[in-house]
Amino acid sequence: MPGSGTDSTKPWTAGGPAVILVEPQLGENIGSAARAMGNFGLSRLRIVNPREGWPNEKARIFSAGADRILEQAELFPDLRAALSGTRYAFAATARERGMAKPVLGADGAAAETLARLSSGEDVALVFGRERTGLYTEEVSLCDAILTLPVNPAFASLNLATCVAVAAYEWSKAASAGGLPFAPPDRSPLADKADLFAFFDHLEGALEEAGFFRSAEKQPSTTRNIRNIFHRLGLTKQDLATLHGAVAALVEGREGREARKAENNARAAQKAVERRARRESGD
Amino acid sequence: MPGSGTDSTKPWTAGGPAVILVEPQLGENIGSAARAMGNFGLSRLRIVNPREGWPNEKARIFSAGADRILEQAELFPDLRAALSGTRYAFAATARERGMAKPVLGADGAAAETLARLSSGEDVALVFGRERTGLYTEEVSLCDAILTLPVNPAFASLNLATCVAVAAYEWSKAASAGGLPFAPPDRSPLADKADLFAFFDHLEGALEEAGFFRSAEKQPSTTRNIRNIFHRLGLTKQDLATLHGAVAALVEGREGREARKAENNARAAQKAVERRARRESGD
Repeated sequence: MPGSGTDSTKPWTAGGPAVILVEPQLGENIGSAARAMGNFGLSRLRIVNPREGWPNEKARIFSAGADRILEQAELFPDLRAALSGTRYAFAATARERGMAKPVLGADGAAAETLARLSSGEDVALVFGRERTGLYTEEVSLCDAILTLPVNPAFASLNLATCVAVAAYEWSKAASAGGLPFAPPDRSPLADKADLFAFFDHLEGALEEAGFFRSAEKQPSTTRNIRNIFHRLGLTKQDLATLHGAVAALVEGREGREARKAENNARAAQKAVERRARRESGD
Repeated sequence: MPGSGTDSTKPWTAGGPAVILVEPQLGENIGSAARAMGNFGLSRLRIVNPREGWPNEKARIFSAGADRILEQAELFPDLRAALSGTRYAFAATARERGMAKPVLGADGAAAETLARLSSGEDVALVFGRERTGLYTEEVSLCDAILTLPVNPAFASLNLATCVAVAAYEWSKAASAGGLPFAPPDRSPLADKADLFAFFDHLEGALEEAGFFRSAEKQPSTTRNIRNIFHRLGLTKQDLATLHGAVAALVEGREGREARKAENNARAAQKAVERRARRESGD
């Protein structure tokens, strides 16, 4: 996510399926794919015949710190060679190939990958060229098809985006849906006695301030206010904050009223003095 | 996905939550984010105070055809203004903020978004600056936090990747897990009578070819072969293909044997001729 750098004090998450990029055209995309792999805990990159040669400086720059993935990347002359050692392979494709193979989303592919890796079968995710994707011949070397729920009018995903989504689903599956952080531990709900004491404080202050203009509607207005606060699920700490806020509003009003009364008194005094001066003929 | 271009004959998928980019630094990232939005059916982009100004030529190039999203993008001076009209907002962040807000993954956020949009509450997904993310003050303007299951040692996602994953989960939720294509309609499993006829053909051919070297092991080997074909779930079409393949192997072998026999006959003939010549004293 933007705004969160590399933190070398934490263990680097590695493992998962191999990622095979077949004849990628741009170093930028290889680097961005490696970055996304690193973000989501994938580490094994295989590259088939990269168009710009290898190593590639742009790939290094765009990996944004995932150098270790690029340094350990393995090169192969074709997909057949790159798949050696693999037991099950997914071919990423946006186009129907008319082949009788299972078609899975990135989530289904991640679940299948997790199950196969757990039983010792190595898995590869295979991605094609930026412009033309995988050849049908290459798809036919794989066991299943991985595809994404894309806008049919605009289905051309960036190569690294495609790798990122597959890697994201891998991370989600491998962490069993766990997220890197949760909301802070929540205090328990306030005791109803404390909640009702707050209601008393608030309703008393509102009554004194003249908020309930009609005695007839006061009960229903009171219920509405209580409903607002009830659905907040307030904690003891929340109640302390709200008590303070109500008290400050009351004191602020009283302070304003005191200042206003003082100003009025001063103005009256001045008027008296002016009148006295006029009357004395100054 | 790579290798699948823009297809103007299909309807452009639009709608979903608004995407708000807060002070994005690079046009490339705005363009890549717009491309990912278009890929996964999001269309409403709001940009807060883009550093390089607006419009931005690099954004246009990197949108790779999602021009309409950039053209319709709205600019705002700050997040508060950009959120006007929104009822519920998610702040994307990789860092814990110690704020008592719900923390959801991209999948949970997509489900919540779908439910709120369905009941007429407009939703925004808010993404921060490339380097520094969202300020805590900005997160405090949002209802919930969206975060991803990242490698804690390498949590810095590219801005467009982050938008892409959120948009992907939106598309998944909005399409109820539907994928753009499925495996071709599968023919039903073959009739067992046809399957057994194939077994007869295969086992007969193997026997004739001398495959079963030991009469003792023949039954268990036969069972193993039947098991292989049983677990394939063969269709009538598959059986026709396999009958053909077995026949070709048999004929090929017979052909080879015939050629071998011919070669042997020719060699014998030549030997006879050579001997005849030697004997006639040439």
